[in-house]
Amino acid sequence: MSTATTSLDRLCIDTIRTLAMDVVQKANSGHPGTPMGAATMAYTLWTRFLRHNPSDPAWPDRDRFVLSAGHASALLYILLHLTGYDLPLDELKRFRQFGSKTPGHPERGHTPGVEVTSGPLGQGFGMAVGLAVAERWLAARFNRPGHTVVDHYTYGVCSDGDMMEGVSAEAASLAGTLGLGKLIFLYDDNEISIEGDTDLAFTEDVGRRFGAYNWHVQHVDGEDVGQVARALEAARAETARPSLIVARTTIAYGSPNMAGSAETHGSPLGEDEVRATKEALGWPAEERFRIPPEALADFRRALADGAALQADWEARLDAYARDYPEDAALFRAWTAGELPAGWQDVLPAFSGEEKPMATRAASGRCITVLAEVLGNLVGGSADLAPSTNTYMKGLGDMDPEHPGGRNMHFGVREHAMGTIVNGMAIHGGLIPFGATFLVFSDYMRGAIRLAALQRARSIFVFTHDSIGLGEDGPTHQPIEHLASLRAMPNLTLIRPADANETAAAWGCALQADGPVALVLTRQALPVLADVGRIREGVPRGAYVVADAPSGTPDVILLATGSEVSLAIAAREQLASDGIAARVVSMPSWELFEAQPQEYRHEVLPPTVRARLAVEAASPLGWAKYVGNEGDVVGLEHFGASAPYKVLFEEFGFTAENVAARARAVVQRLREM
Amino acid sequence: MSTATTSLDRLCIDTIRTLAMDVVQKANSGHPGTPMGAATMAYTLWTRFLRHNPSDPAWPDRDRFVLSAGHASALLYILLHLTGYDLPLDELKRFRQFGSKTPGHPERGHTPGVEVTSGPLGQGFGMAVGLAVAERWLAARFNRPGHTVVDHYTYGVCSDGDMMEGVSAEAASLAGTLGLGKLIFLYDDNEISIEGDTDLAFTEDVGRRFGAYNWHVQHVDGEDVGQVARALEAARAETARPSLIVARTTIAYGSPNMAGSAETHGSPLGEDEVRATKEALGWPAEERFRIPPEALADFRRALADGAALQADWEARLDAYARDYPEDAALFRAWTAGELPAGWQDVLPAFSGEEKPMATRAASGRCITVLAEVLGNLVGGSADLAPSTNTYMKGLGDMDPEHPGGRNMHFGVREHAMGTIVNGMAIHGGLIPFGATFLVFSDYMRGAIRLAALQRARSIFVFTHDSIGLGEDGPTHQPIEHLASLRAMPNLTLIRPADANETAAAWGCALQADGPVALVLTRQALPVLADVGRIREGVPRGAYVVADAPSGTPDVILLATGSEVSLAIAAREQLASDGIAARVVSMPSWELFEAQPQEYRHEVLPPTVRARLAVEAASPLGWAKYVGNEGDVVGLEHFGASAPYKVLFEEFGFTAENVAARARAVVQRLREM
Repeated sequence: MSTATTSLDRLCIDTIRTLAMDVVQKANSGHPGTPMGAATMAYTLWTRFLRHNPSDPAWPDRDRFVLSAGHASALLYILLHLTGYDLPLDELKRFRQFGSKTPGHPERGHTPGVEVTSGPLGQGFGMAVGLAVAERWLAARFNRPGHTVVDHYTYGVCSDGDMMEGVSAEAASLAGTLGLGKLIFLYDDNEISIEGDTDLAFTEDVGRRFGAYNWHVQHVDGEDVGQVARALEAARAETARPSLIVARTTIAYGSPNMAGSAETHGSPLGEDEVRATKEALGWPAEERFRIPPEALADFRRALADGAALQADWEARLDAYARDYPEDAALFRAWTAGELPAGWQDVLPAFSGEEKPMATRAASGRCITVLAEVLGNLVGGSADLAPSTNTYMKGLGDMDPEHPGGRNMHFGVREHAMGTIVNGMAIHGGLIPFGATFLVFSDYMRGAIRLAALQRARSIFVFTHDSIGLGEDGPTHQPIEHLASLRAMPNLTLIRPADANETAAAWGCALQADGPVALVLTRQALPVLADVGRIREGVPRGAYVVADAPSGTPDVILLATGSEVSLAIAAREQLASDGIAARVVSMPSWELFEAQPQEYRHEVLPPTVRARLAVEAASPLGWAKYVGNEGDVVGLEHFGASAPYKVLFEEFGFTAENVAARARAVVQRLREM
Repeated sequence: MSTATTSLDRLCIDTIRTLAMDVVQKANSGHPGTPMGAATMAYTLWTRFLRHNPSDPAWPDRDRFVLSAGHASALLYILLHLTGYDLPLDELKRFRQFGSKTPGHPERGHTPGVEVTSGPLGQGFGMAVGLAVAERWLAARFNRPGHTVVDHYTYGVCSDGDMMEGVSAEAASLAGTLGLGKLIFLYDDNEISIEGDTDLAFTEDVGRRFGAYNWHVQHVDGEDVGQVARALEAARAETARPSLIVARTTIAYGSPNMAGSAETHGSPLGEDEVRATKEALGWPAEERFRIPPEALADFRRALADGAALQADWEARLDAYARDYPEDAALFRAWTAGELPAGWQDVLPAFSGEEKPMATRAASGRCITVLAEVLGNLVGGSADLAPSTNTYMKGLGDMDPEHPGGRNMHFGVREHAMGTIVNGMAIHGGLIPFGATFLVFSDYMRGAIRLAALQRARSIFVFTHDSIGLGEDGPTHQPIEHLASLRAMPNLTLIRPADANETAAAWGCALQADGPVALVLTRQALPVLADVGRIREGVPRGAYVVADAPSGTPDVILLATGSEVSLAIAAREQLASDGIAARVVSMPSWELFEAQPQEYRHEVLPPTVRARLAVEAASPLGWAKYVGNEGDVVGLEHFGASAPYKVLFEEFGFTAENVAARARAVVQRLREM
């Protein structure tokens, strides 16, 4: 491979730069400096290393490219257009406009060739680690001597901002421990961030830090095609460690008056400076969106090259299918996101005779049986596996010597866990999950949000879901977390009421069209016996657990999770007072809202206005279901450290108090 | 200072260890291993270095001690008891029980001598950085040649888990850039986390990493009093860099069968092993909560020493007050959290004639004038100062050469910013703030929550508060953030509707008894002219901006922030249809809920059931105010990338649509 910078290289690189200026200038919004500064290294990577097929962005064995510095989206759109993806120049001219394929930050599923949604700094970096984990796991699972069907790199470009975020630090540390040799990041070290020179806030030695993480670190001049290419070659040659190529670059390179200035970070250069820059680059100053044919032809080689690469891979997959038909079928099914026939049959049914069981424990039993039939269920916890009941016994730990281990040890790194699970989900082929305590969902909200935005099929297992965790106290007791997760679009939250609802919740999680949060107890709960009703009810989000004898209740008790059995007990007490209560278990608001109105009215008849919600959490949001005349037994303050039964007593989560509050609601309505 | 381990040292250390076992065993809950492993280094620090006065935990110039590994709370409670704080042995016997002073994790304000609430890993580390920033800033501001009134260290103990969290990485990097020479952390490197050996997930070279951050790093045997003491001396001698002392320790040191095992991390040792450990330590095996008198006497020297240290400091402060009376008065006022007389008079009043102004811009003007009268207003942004309008011109940048600079550059480190602001607020003497985009409040939720739990007076400035930020698109557009922050107890969220409400919001923020989130627009908004009404209304959380001519509205339009002017415009349209609408601006739900019912009913008369809320965000929670018959113009999906006016049109945030939706509500009620 030649590594000298040719005049064609220069032309291609300047094509990227001038387009970046034009794209941002036309939108009068965006970030021109980073695309201009990173143009050389991106060009080198995309034209000499990246194995992709612009005609089929879904080719499973393509190299993945992650622009963690998502604000440089113009760079990615330009590369996609130039190499022949289905992204016409007109779309570049509609940068950041409503309905265009070129939004402000890259969005997976919206623009062909965009692998991950990025922009919130550090997220792309973490997802790239997840992509690399997925590739290595699938390679370990499927490749055989003489047969290589999974074999791609994960490349990324990251910025100073990515490097400052804690999530990338967590992900980098874990990537070093895992020894992800096929993960290669180009670090656009331009020493400029929005407030000015990075020295204001960021004087650390990033290369040394990554060395401490067990990364292979190189330093290059980011304007030198040869240096960048040689570093990429060396990075590929290093198979035991992930690689960081620290590329010194100049933001807005080429701009005579603004190169190296923070002003070019987030604003267009202005018409005059665009013109001056084009002149300095020897470019027609007045022409916009100019793409010299020689440059385009060079970039578009990717079409023929990519088709050949993919054809070769498909031939290899066919050969594999002849020698390993079952594995090939499995690879195709997993890659297509298919679940094996009958998978749901393994979900355990728990008898009402069983001892009370924590939903985290029931979840553990589900994971154990699901892991048998779903050979691609891979996941772990942020150093809480014994507490979250997520360890899959006998299925191995993932480490450099055992890349096909099913259990991951994320360490105390919730945020990176979220991003890595997202990356694994987005890669395809795996069903990934990550677990921690519900309170620490706060640490990973950035990742949960990006899962929701991309509809990544990430499964998050959140245990210790209320004051019911007891002695650990208010620092560990979620109060606001249910409401705050319910507020997030596209996320399905399920808080099952017992072991059987937990099994049904796992069934929903595996079929969801986006991320799912399973919210589980630490403490034991009675087992609800009616498995049939539960398996029908949970996927509908809410259902009647126990009804008024007549079917026309005086009051409806709505509850989720551990509070459902409390509501059932309160119903008994109310019955002895002659008040007929219906108990509605409502494990998932999102699933319930997706039901037809007819069903929703069947469960919550509009005529029954006496309603009481019971949830050991912030009441925010329940007013929608209990209405003006209803009430909520919730928590508007933080918890406390004590055995959980004491806390439930102290904070009013007793059958007596629920019944009393329900009576008050009924009474108030009668007096109205 | 002698550094040999004496038999008295051994006795004292074993007193800590045996108490730790007993405390956890009695509670039958908690973490014995870390207190036992960290006993030697904690003993060395507390008896030979820590300058504190157990009789006055509020002495302003005490050294601060932060147990970032908050799960080792038993260690801290034992040290507090032994050195003579107001924490009787009976409270240790009530560890983790309801109402005790010894909750599962340390809680500031709950237990005398606990400096910060910790437990969620990494938070304590970040707050310690904030404490050290505050000390250095106050020292730069007040100390004079011959007068040293601010001069203390910030010590901490952190764990493997703390080191894995991204927030500590962010905070450590910034601490290195700032060169915080008086910040000293003992890192309890016991190589064990909950899932087992840290090698499972954490193989990085932490010392090398901290070296890359510009920390002074030493390695010691954590069981050797002399090594720990010499390292602490060297750390104090190093004035230009923060210090990390990597102490190799053994979890559950002393336990014959369980030392070094992950099982001792989060569970009691069990009666048998407690007995065996006491025997191995040469301790009476059956005795519980034994404190040998010689050991107690040694620890309790802290009482006399502390009183002398504080008396000496008070004499120095008196001398200072003679030479610098104004500064001494200011020091005392700031330390007491007092605001200068008339400070509110400087808040700008904006005329209705002014051009539309973004609330972030109005906030910037408030900060400028407040910074003049509040000499201790110190803060900055996570690399977004030009966008959040938080830079205080002419007041200097904080860096190692200018420790008294008023502007901080947190870098792209939202989570660390939150923890550091919390630490600064908790230290006392400063009014700290931190700023970023509202969407990135997700990255710092862990810190916001701890601010709320401790009622730390942290001010968080969150700009770019809705789809109104426009082109940056859905990755940057908050949808769920208002609801998710409103769900958090103790946090006051204020979303002002214009420049004048913004000034009033700043007035509230400076008087709040806990953290405040100011939520501000990127886009310009019309200025509402009635300054008097606004200054009365905002502190009450909601008020009538424009009423029905009769005072009895047909419909109430509730809105916050940028949607208030939209509601006002809709009111005009409704008026022309003969529908009389009241517009209620509701900048803060929390402040409104704190009002007497009479006021709340005055603003939202229960008889007016036709209500429409308008907020460019998730509607979650609004049902409480609009009731069964009301409606919400909100967003139940993510945003999009486009100029904001287009987005407001596309997503129904127009006066026409608001008026139409209001008419529908009125109509529906009339038909009922």
